[in-house]
Amino acid sequence: MSNPGQHMAAEIAEQPAVLGGLVARRREIADVAAAISRRPPRFALLAARGSSDHAALYAKYLIEVLLGLPAGLVSPSTVTLYGARPDLRDVLLVSVSQSGGSPDLLEFTQIARKQGALTVAVTNTPASPLGGAAELAVDIGAGRETAVAATKTYSATLLALYLLIDAVRGGDSSAAAEIEPLARQALEVDVQRAVDRYRFVDRIITTGRGYSYATALESALKLAETSYLAARAYSGADLLHGPVAAVDEETAVLAITGAGRGGAALRDVLAAVTERGADVLALGSSAGEAPAALRIPVPSVAEELAPVLEVLPVQRIALGLALARGFDPDRPRGLNKVTRTR
Amino acid sequence: MSNPGQHMAAEIAEQPAVLGGLVARRREIADVAAAISRRPPRFALLAARGSSDHAALYAKYLIEVLLGLPAGLVSPSTVTLYGARPDLRDVLLVSVSQSGGSPDLLEFTQIARKQGALTVAVTNTPASPLGGAAELAVDIGAGRETAVAATKTYSATLLALYLLIDAVRGGDSSAAAEIEPLARQALEVDVQRAVDRYRFVDRIITTGRGYSYATALESALKLAETSYLAARAYSGADLLHGPVAAVDEETAVLAITGAGRGGAALRDVLAAVTERGADVLALGSSAGEAPAALRIPVPSVAEELAPVLEVLPVQRIALGLALARGFDPDRPRGLNKVTRTR
Repeated sequence: MSNPGQHMAAEIAEQPAVLGGLVARRREIADVAAAISRRPPRFALLAARGSSDHAALYAKYLIEVLLGLPAGLVSPSTVTLYGARPDLRDVLLVSVSQSGGSPDLLEFTQIARKQGALTVAVTNTPASPLGGAAELAVDIGAGRETAVAATKTYSATLLALYLLIDAVRGGDSSAAAEIEPLARQALEVDVQRAVDRYRFVDRIITTGRGYSYATALESALKLAETSYLAARAYSGADLLHGPVAAVDEETAVLAITGAGRGGAALRDVLAAVTERGADVLALGSSAGEAPAALRIPVPSVAEELAPVLEVLPVQRIALGLALARGFDPDRPRGLNKVTRTR
Repeated sequence: MSNPGQHMAAEIAEQPAVLGGLVARRREIADVAAAISRRPPRFALLAARGSSDHAALYAKYLIEVLLGLPAGLVSPSTVTLYGARPDLRDVLLVSVSQSGGSPDLLEFTQIARKQGALTVAVTNTPASPLGGAAELAVDIGAGRETAVAATKTYSATLLALYLLIDAVRGGDSSAAAEIEPLARQALEVDVQRAVDRYRFVDRIITTGRGYSYATALESALKLAETSYLAARAYSGADLLHGPVAAVDEETAVLAITGAGRGGAALRDVLAAVTERGADVLALGSSAGEAPAALRIPVPSVAEELAPVLEVLPVQRIALGLALARGFDPDRPRGLNKVTRTR
């Protein structure tokens, strides 16, 4: 019999080593990148579900900004339910699945390959059906995941995608060289005050812009699935477009505030929610300067790598909050590791 | 001084005529489609914010299924914040904005055109900056929108996108011929029991699959921005992947259950949330057969047009609920018609 949250806590703590291990294996990932460069795509598609979908969104930003390619997230059901057979020549499909076992992603990947796409699976289980179905595979190498809530597989997927896409553009991944010690620092940040603050919260909005929008999405999911909070993520731009109307004194806002352009673009959003009386928790490398009731700093790194570090204290908040509210995040109600939807 | 919700109610009621007017102008839209067919794209991008983003997602499904083209939703910030200049030759960009005034969509559209995309603006204000920036424009012709919450512009945008994409594939839009009387029927459905049921609700999850996922997203936004509910949408597939853990006896689930493949694929989702004790409201053309506490039928139509009708009773629920809870949906807290984010 394990203690509540024991598996989740252990896997959160493994992350610096997992991330360091990935950087050490960057040559292997660069070989996959070289295979992509030999068949240069004109468009990119990303297929994923759940946490991996947030990693896919992060990769979409990387592909658009670093590679200058248009990219889109796949709606697998157009192919699996409605039988679409799109022309995918010159398309790079990156299928992201920690388990490599989601039937709809597998089917989509198989059909995409037949339709001419260059297919790459990014997975923690290269021997999975998905790993076998794709032409190329990147092993995120996070080791066996026992906890139900994805933590180390999420951060490792982000970093693997960065290393892959940076290598496609001819980069040397030097921005990631120090990721292991930085992740270690990010895990030492005190999150207890955030856990205390959210002990009785009902409603959280998470927000971020640019690369860190992925962190906002993953934060909302992690809080919802471990602590059963009504947590919802908005890009800063979309939040101002309408849902800000629902923000009031009873609303907790978790804002991902990094030092880069995404964080800078969030300033208007913070001003708007603060004016409405919301309780703001700023988390990120520029949290110190944000107008907020509580600030959780995250070590600085190149902006495109910030999501790898930002998620670490969020995971610890989610774990601490689940325990404080009397839940066992290792035994959440109704969560399965592999999606069986089609 | 107007009565609370008066503008929203009036514009909801205008929809059958607006939709009928669009069908009558289908030749004009077919001319835009012909211009697209002369420069056949290989990839489609859709740019939008807020409600229009849900219409864009609907169009993404149409493009993938009816045209067999890969498609993606744009993250404008990659271009506007991070300065990406993607190669957009052979790309069709559809920019969807009711006001045509969002600065980031305008900037994205201008840059996309320079980068080689064939640009089409779908807007209610063709004389707007966006209408002028795009090479081609579709006027959704919904007339002046006075209410703050988008209703007629949303349904008209959906139908305009359908008529455009159907014409690109050489269709004659016959499936839409009866949309005006069907919309009239959809607006006559009794929604009072839904309003009563949600009078004191805190937390709503909306869900749908396939084309109707757009309806689920728009429903959550409409409820959040008019009644300040913590409403969150999930595709049925994603809901089962994790967030179902947060569903319990206190959760209201609004499920969009149409007669087509999307509705059929939702059966597992309904079974899962019902097993967890959720209060299910089924809304759609097959709501009658769904396991649900309350069922709101919607007239049958070709599955790809169902979202045009499904949203109509949802708008009436949002209006009724806002009034029942003491809010004026015509004067929501903090909602502006034009997004000024960059």
